[in-house]
Amino acid sequence: MKIRMGMVGGGEGAFIGAIHRMAAALDGEIELVAGCFSSNPKQGRMTGEKLGLDPERVYQSYQQLFSEEAKRSVDDRVEFIAVVTPNDLHLPVAIAALRAGFHVLSDKPAAGNLEETLALQQEVVRSERIYGLTHTYAAYPMVVQAKEILRRGELGNIRRVTVTYPQGWLALADDTKGSKQAGWRTDPKRSGESGCFTDIGTHAHYLVEFVTGERISEVCADLQSVVDERALDDDGAALFKLTGGGRGTLTASQVCGGESNNLNISIYGERGSLFWEQESPNQLQIKYRGKPKATLQAGVDCEYLDKKVRALCRTPQGHPEGYIEAFANIYRDFAQMVRSQRRDFPVQSGNCVGGIDAGVRAMAFVRGALESSCQQSSWVTLAPYWE
Amino acid sequence: MKIRMGMVGGGEGAFIGAIHRMAAALDGEIELVAGCFSSNPKQGRMTGEKLGLDPERVYQSYQQLFSEEAKRSVDDRVEFIAVVTPNDLHLPVAIAALRAGFHVLSDKPAAGNLEETLALQQEVVRSERIYGLTHTYAAYPMVVQAKEILRRGELGNIRRVTVTYPQGWLALADDTKGSKQAGWRTDPKRSGESGCFTDIGTHAHYLVEFVTGERISEVCADLQSVVDERALDDDGAALFKLTGGGRGTLTASQVCGGESNNLNISIYGERGSLFWEQESPNQLQIKYRGKPKATLQAGVDCEYLDKKVRALCRTPQGHPEGYIEAFANIYRDFAQMVRSQRRDFPVQSGNCVGGIDAGVRAMAFVRGALESSCQQSSWVTLAPYWE
Amino acid sequence: MKIRMGMVGGGEGAFIGAIHRMAAALDGEIELVAGCFSSNPKQGRMTGEKLGLDPERVYQSYQQLFSEEAKRSVDDRVEFIAVVTPNDLHLPVAIAALRAGFHVLSDKPAAGNLEETLALQQEVVRSERIYGLTHTYAAYPMVVQAKEILRRGELGNIRRVTVTYPQGWLALADDTKGSKQAGWRTDPKRSGESGCFTDIGTHAHYLVEFVTGERISEVCADLQSVVDERALDDDGAALFKLTGGGRGTLTASQVCGGESNNLNISIYGERGSLFWEQESPNQLQIKYRGKPKATLQAGVDCEYLDKKVRALCRTPQGHPEGYIEAFANIYRDFAQMVRSQRRDFPVQSGNCVGGIDAGVRAMAFVRGALESSCQQSSWVTLAPYWE
Amino acid sequence: MKIRMGMVGGGEGAFIGAIHRMAAALDGEIELVAGCFSSNPKQGRMTGEKLGLDPERVYQSYQQLFSEEAKRSVDDRVEFIAVVTPNDLHLPVAIAALRAGFHVLSDKPAAGNLEETLALQQEVVRSERIYGLTHTYAAYPMVVQAKEILRRGELGNIRRVTVTYPQGWLALADDTKGSKQAGWRTDPKRSGESGCFTDIGTHAHYLVEFVTGERISEVCADLQSVVDERALDDDGAALFKLTGGGRGTLTASQVCGGESNNLNISIYGERGSLFWEQESPNQLQIKYRGKPKATLQAGVDCEYLDKKVRALCRTPQGHPEGYIEAFANIYRDFAQMVRSQRRDFPVQSGNCVGGIDAGVRAMAFVRGALESSCQQSSWVTLAPYWE
Repeated sequence: MKIRMGMVGGGEGAFIGAIHRMAAALDGEIELVAGCFSSNPKQGRMTGEKLGLDPERVYQSYQQLFSEEAKRSVDDRVEFIAVVTPNDLHLPVAIAALRAGFHVLSDKPAAGNLEETLALQQEVVRSERIYGLTHTYAAYPMVVQAKEILRRGELGNIRRVTVTYPQGWLALADDTKGSKQAGWRTDPKRSGESGCFTDIGTHAHYLVEFVTGERISEVCADLQSVVDERALDDDGAALFKLTGGGRGTLTASQVCGGESNNLNISIYGERGSLFWEQESPNQLQIKYRGKPKATLQAGVDCEYLDKKVRALCRTPQGHPEGYIEAFANIYRDFAQMVRSQRRDFPVQSGNCVGGIDAGVRAMAFVRGALESSCQQSSWVTLAPYWE
Repeated sequence: MKIRMGMVGGGEGAFIGAIHRMAAALDGEIELVAGCFSSNPKQGRMTGEKLGLDPERVYQSYQQLFSEEAKRSVDDRVEFIAVVTPNDLHLPVAIAALRAGFHVLSDKPAAGNLEETLALQQEVVRSERIYGLTHTYAAYPMVVQAKEILRRGELGNIRRVTVTYPQGWLALADDTKGSKQAGWRTDPKRSGESGCFTDIGTHAHYLVEFVTGERISEVCADLQSVVDERALDDDGAALFKLTGGGRGTLTASQVCGGESNNLNISIYGERGSLFWEQESPNQLQIKYRGKPKATLQAGVDCEYLDKKVRALCRTPQGHPEGYIEAFANIYRDFAQMVRSQRRDFPVQSGNCVGGIDAGVRAMAFVRGALESSCQQSSWVTLAPYWE
Repeated sequence: MKIRMGMVGGGEGAFIGAIHRMAAALDGEIELVAGCFSSNPKQGRMTGEKLGLDPERVYQSYQQLFSEEAKRSVDDRVEFIAVVTPNDLHLPVAIAALRAGFHVLSDKPAAGNLEETLALQQEVVRSERIYGLTHTYAAYPMVVQAKEILRRGELGNIRRVTVTYPQGWLALADDTKGSKQAGWRTDPKRSGESGCFTDIGTHAHYLVEFVTGERISEVCADLQSVVDERALDDDGAALFKLTGGGRGTLTASQVCGGESNNLNISIYGERGSLFWEQESPNQLQIKYRGKPKATLQAGVDCEYLDKKVRALCRTPQGHPEGYIEAFANIYRDFAQMVRSQRRDFPVQSGNCVGGIDAGVRAMAFVRGALESSCQQSSWVTLAPYWE
Repeated sequence: MKIRMGMVGGGEGAFIGAIHRMAAALDGEIELVAGCFSSNPKQGRMTGEKLGLDPERVYQSYQQLFSEEAKRSVDDRVEFIAVVTPNDLHLPVAIAALRAGFHVLSDKPAAGNLEETLALQQEVVRSERIYGLTHTYAAYPMVVQAKEILRRGELGNIRRVTVTYPQGWLALADDTKGSKQAGWRTDPKRSGESGCFTDIGTHAHYLVEFVTGERISEVCADLQSVVDERALDDDGAALFKLTGGGRGTLTASQVCGGESNNLNISIYGERGSLFWEQESPNQLQIKYRGKPKATLQAGVDCEYLDKKVRALCRTPQGHPEGYIEAFANIYRDFAQMVRSQRRDFPVQSGNCVGGIDAGVRAMAFVRGALESSCQQSSWVTLAPYWE
């Protein structure tokens, strides 16, 4: 029986809502049965109709969604809520959903700042519900393969990490005009205390910690608002230290003209180095010391990959997968967690879904970077949330 | 209201069935409501159960599927049949489905040889049903972009085409043992009169004709069975002529050790040349004479792409899409055709779905290549099916 | 003591002459001491002056060069002649030089057609002088590495070879006007009986035979003159058979708009496949069955390369080398052969320099391709020159 | 008449000396006539012999070289000195050469620290001789093309620069044993006050300033010695500010296992971004906002390149050039400066040769990075040497 999903946000013109729905649909294990898609009721209804939902289950507010669905029988009501609203609603929607007894799968960031995220963390613990964050990039098979290679120590000690995440869609002052996406992302009231670092710096942070299996413990950052009159950072870079002793640099920018979504990471170890680029996600390059460069390729049938990595693939080698499939890995993983909860099995943490602790660490990183940047780029220790 | 799909084939262990289901599910416009998934009834039932189908609509034979579904009301019964069986069943299933009044979307090849495909063509015409072939590779956005660029004459006359499609999964004699996939593909009774050229040569043929908008009119081929004791070709190459005057080479092989699914095409024109590789499908490279090489990138927001190409994308630039999304473009396109039929609108041929005429041309090409190869690689004219 | 070189051809505006001089100079083992650089005496003198040559040794005809130099003492006169004239002079200059007792290093082709090349072969044997052909592309280190890998049988039997050599500099009718290079290359009197296939098809042919260590024994070709009013082929493709049983396709064209010098070769074996592109010459890619793709990189310090390959590198890994260095490998190798002759050591055939036998095979290939093309692409056997 | 060069350093086993000699020889405009190749007289003699030098002009000390050559006639004596010794001798050799009246072309760094370099700067001014530094990477044609594109403002304001230079040859503790190269580079007495940042960080610094046409004005750095017991930094990273307002990160490391010489730079502007990698030097990638990615390719015949860039190429497009050719661009440029001096023409600063001012700025950068790193990565202003 399929897992029943409700959605908050994701009306017309909202890029990420449609992605979430495709990701949820891909493997045929999840059914979207209810939603509150827009703050504009008419628009919300239209989205619901388009999606073929029962009009009764297309709600005008998320509060209504939760209270009405809670009245339905346990075999009928939604089991988890996908939160795909602008950033400022992530927190209240998640809290309300948890309190109403629903599991939550939220787009990142978990909340607008560190304190709110800590509050949410307490709420998650209290609710005994499953809470997941969609850090998509860590759900690509080859990112998990990279993590496994490092976990086994194949590259020796990690000496250095370079992660850069340049985007260009906010490169000009006019870019924030008339774009719903750009609008709220550059508005402090809706985006939180940081712009670029919250929006994409957190992806880079998560990727570093996920792949290395270590934590970023200290940060020395330089954030700025490049385009005039923007209240929040749209560009920045940081030096950082890893708990294992390695050092790194993290760059995140939304004002790099011509760039799309160029997240990439280089991890340099004692005995080899590895490289992954989000825009070519099916490849993982490894330069082992003294050997030819190796390019590993995703594929369900690819014997040199770890078993858990092959389980994240849907097609044989040579049949590319992409961003939606990575997203679908998160949904499949989350559905698995929900299903095990159904049967009162112990909930196992999946490989792909970030939890609230990752959300706390991300916001602690953003806070540390902001503090450092305000203090002339002095080193700031991120403890103790990463412990 | 979603389009209702039935499926024949695609039980456990059948790679392509699962791909078809994901592709159909991705955009939320199609619902799988019935199927006959296996010649083994028990296995078929298990697949149906896994997929959450009503057990009543999981049938033991495709004949039963068609007769039972035809009894249902017009608003309830399946509207089209996805044919994902081994090659030898494509023809009988398609004919039975058409005769029962259902539209058909078939995996390629349409039938096992030219005569059968011509018979099917007549059946399609007689049935007034929609018949589609899933030539996936032509449904990648950047392939359609290539077609548009050539259609506009940006590269001038086409001088030369090089299409190569090396795979390696049948490289060793042992590769056909114990693999369901490999088994029927190397068995003349089930695969038809040709092996490799029917299986993947037709993809290369279709890609050439689709992108250039021309037809292959003559072929001079050299097919062989490299691995001992194989009855059918597992490797071959051909010189060919295009109706527009250009020349080309087509290589298809399943015995190239280490290769996965490396379909790629180079089209050389008077004023520029373009290149596309299936394993990096989101890029299209163009070398315009006297200018820097241009790399076009897929993306729903990518302004320099043709409007119809952007409509084939689901994500913004920098968020890779893959094989399943290309397949989903075919399903979405086919569903659109079915929907327009529903409303008695004229059926418009979509961009992505190959029709039965393409199937006839493909088998005429295979036949021509076989004939040429048997006649010491003399030139064979493929007329008149390409006219 | 440096090897003393004389040059015929290579005046102002002659691209290849300057390349030869740089290649000869690079390793400091060869000294250009005499030359006849142009059919125009004034221009020849100017070139000689620019090059800092003794004016007495800048001659007005190649005949004069040979007769005057022969009068000098054995420790003073030129030891070998670099022939860098247009194609039609390769033969007479080489014969005159050999008869005058000089070794010859000639740009390819050795002569304008098969019969002339066979005549030259006899002359070489008679003269007991060293004769070398500059098939530059085989002198790249990674091409030699590819040869070694195949020689050791690492990839098993060779199933298929795809070699393509598209250039674009003759894509338009106007391209032959006003270009000294283009002029003689499209003139049958000066270029020989074939245009494109003699000019660059022979490079592709040589590369196939060099890397595989096999011979092309049969050819089935389709040559054409794409641009109106050209007397010679400017484009063509061929199917071929290798003596080891493998099959292949060879494409050579000078009318592919936007292409520069895109020679590349794919060799598909039983247990793996390898790829090399002239425009990225320092890399060799190998896809071993069941393993990640390996990219081998040139470098004098690169331990996984064969010793003889490292000897063809001048810089450590990560410091790219190019076309001139490949050419210099030929000169260094030739100088080594001349030096061993000096000391009455047995002359060892080097790794990099093609000999007259390769020149004969190349012209036999061109002849076979022309014959095949004239006979409706029937298969033509190239025997017995490749035996 | 060729320019006469003397060389100090570059005996057997010294990688860079041979490179300098090949670079000097390539264009036939420079002749090596004298040298002092080794502190070991016997070894020095052997090198001289191998190079075919007059034994009288192979000297036992650089002092002797300068005094003896100075005694020769003005048309006979060396005109400039190539300094290719270990770092600690760059300064005394350069000063002695300048005082003896010779021009100097020195491998970088100019001297071991900032104060010494300032002293050398005074000496250069006083001597009225030409002083050049071989910052090779800025002499690649496509680097100069990048500079021109930025100079014309095609990409708008520079927002961000990411330059990384990972090497791996000192990744393990054992790597410094038995290697002449590694030995002096990790020895503070011979390498100066910094290891990695002096050795390769200066290349990255020079590249940033050269390409952007701006200066690095402030630095916030974190240097470390990763491998135990090394006295000097072998790894480090820095945030920096450009005089034009852009920000950047610079990473230089010699302990990244598996890396060779992976210098690469990304420059992100308002309207586009550009990318260059030393290991693929003939390409320059530009992502213009709203347009397909462009890949510019080197070539003497490439019309879309700036004229001064084409002058730095020796081969047509599609014939790769490399590291030695870049080095040769420096030598050719330097020879041009020496030649104009000969004729009492005004000395024009070439495009490719770094001068002493660049040397001062480089060492000011290293000093600033060291200071910053010692002060908990506080920002250090590099003024005023960059003004």
